[in-house]
Amino acid sequence: MNILVTGGAGFIGSHLCDMLLEEGHRVVCVDDLSLGRLENIAHHTGNPLFSFIELNILKTDQLNTVFKEHGFEHVFHMAANSDIQQGASDLNIDLEKTFMTTFSILQCMKNNAVKNIVFASSSAVYGENTAPLTEDTGPLFPISFYGAAKLASEAYISAACENVGIRAWIFRFPNVVGERATHGAMFDFIKKLQQNPHKLEILGDGTQTKPYLYVKDLVDGIMFGWKNAHDALNYFNLGVDSATDVTTIAEIVVEEMGLADVEFIYTGGDRGWVGDVPKFQYSLRKINALGWTARRTSDEAVRCAVQAELGKAR
Amino acid sequence: MNILVTGGAGFIGSHLCDMLLEEGHRVVCVDDLSLGRLENIAHHTGNPLFSFIELNILKTDQLNTVFKEHGFEHVFHMAANSDIQQGASDLNIDLEKTFMTTFSILQCMKNNAVKNIVFASSSAVYGENTAPLTEDTGPLFPISFYGAAKLASEAYISAACENVGIRAWIFRFPNVVGERATHGAMFDFIKKLQQNPHKLEILGDGTQTKPYLYVKDLVDGIMFGWKNAHDALNYFNLGVDSATDVTTIAEIVVEEMGLADVEFIYTGGDRGWVGDVPKFQYSLRKINALGWTARRTSDEAVRCAVQAELGKAR
Repeated sequence: MNILVTGGAGFIGSHLCDMLLEEGHRVVCVDDLSLGRLENIAHHTGNPLFSFIELNILKTDQLNTVFKEHGFEHVFHMAANSDIQQGASDLNIDLEKTFMTTFSILQCMKNNAVKNIVFASSSAVYGENTAPLTEDTGPLFPISFYGAAKLASEAYISAACENVGIRAWIFRFPNVVGERATHGAMFDFIKKLQQNPHKLEILGDGTQTKPYLYVKDLVDGIMFGWKNAHDALNYFNLGVDSATDVTTIAEIVVEEMGLADVEFIYTGGDRGWVGDVPKFQYSLRKINALGWTARRTSDEAVRCAVQAELGKAR
Repeated sequence: MNILVTGGAGFIGSHLCDMLLEEGHRVVCVDDLSLGRLENIAHHTGNPLFSFIELNILKTDQLNTVFKEHGFEHVFHMAANSDIQQGASDLNIDLEKTFMTTFSILQCMKNNAVKNIVFASSSAVYGENTAPLTEDTGPLFPISFYGAAKLASEAYISAACENVGIRAWIFRFPNVVGERATHGAMFDFIKKLQQNPHKLEILGDGTQTKPYLYVKDLVDGIMFGWKNAHDALNYFNLGVDSATDVTTIAEIVVEEMGLADVEFIYTGGDRGWVGDVPKFQYSLRKINALGWTARRTSDEAVRCAVQAELGKAR
């Protein structure tokens, strides 16, 4: 199939390009390289099924020309701000990079009668809801602008299903880790320990607990849902049934760096930053029932990611 | 208190100005008059507690100056697109008039440390969900861009509660009718019957059934919730426990116009237009429990509105 991947040079987008190409699809990767990196897609240079276009997709006119030239059948919209903390101080970041990119994509899909979109949503749409989070749980009151922009995007995609006649696959991601990631507690820890291998400052009290999904498992789940769910609007939590607390992440980093006797210093409080959700686990029953589960546990995912970052990836 | 009402020259906004002034508040009404009308607020001319500023609130810099000059304590954000059908054909209408106005307001609130917002949301955020709709029901998949822009606004307001430290009162409105309204089935019916008093074309099959809330009851409910709910994020369905089907609206119009033997011709199908929700009723238990109920039934509200439009308002 002829597929557009937005944010295709980014962390998750580039892994998606890998998988789509592996399955024989034609992939056009669009990225403005504000967060994405050419090195993430360099290994596809020369592949006749792959092309890269450097473009900010907020430039709807230019994006429209790309749509006209390529005749896409499916759009995988992965372009977004990925730094939740940065979005807390500047309201424009998530608005532009996450929500307005979705809006621009929907306009081009409408103009060019492209009928299928796969969207990278987030567990952040649920906010601090402590109920067992199935896909049908409400209310949806995000506590970060990141989550707000993802929910706003979902809302527009949903309306487009009805009004423009598109089909959509919305996947809500948990924390995703692995090769090519750019943010996250483990990176901070590695950086801090490289500077001082005796002490490690940990934001919060270390008990913040989240499921970490390995990026290759995530992409596997996206592909599975996309192929096997056939409603007009398909929506799934993607994740892993286990979870890892921040102290365990620190311990894995310390172990993989070959350090010992590191003193952990906690800044205290139940969350790392404003907009952080301290405890989080959601229901995977829907995607499990469709036939998919993640191969790696949360702890395994964290270890894979730390090893990759330390250059020990196998 | 010192209050900004956006969209204050519009249908609901102008009734809100009436009530706020009646209670002794200082009201600055901002409206770009694209949907609002000066005649809706003309009766406040000369009232020293009232001022009107013609401004498109998307012009954030100018809006910011208004904020700086007035030192608002509360913002009632009523400005929005009110024509659901128009938004189906042009994706920009609800984006700009509904969502981006909310975003602009939130930016000015942040810049000027204004801490309280009352927001006009909509039953349209629930989409076609047929569950008993409490405020905590999910999923939220709107089927109109109107509903999508309202949900996107809610999401941003929610994130602003956490990140900017504001307090919010979100009210989800059903169909609202009464003096100064500009859209709705009853207007179409009156117009058509004035042209041809023998035949009336009705979109859909006439069974679309919705609760109609009288605008003065709505404003009463907003004021009640605003005064009596004290969470950081307060959110309520507002409405009336009864509902009226389209054929009944037609019958009330015929009766109030003093006509007889009008032939109803149905265009057929279970909805009037794409994005219309055919059957709708949501739970009012939360606002009822706080101590508020609407004074008029849905049928009474429709009759009041028809009488007002026909110039027979008492």
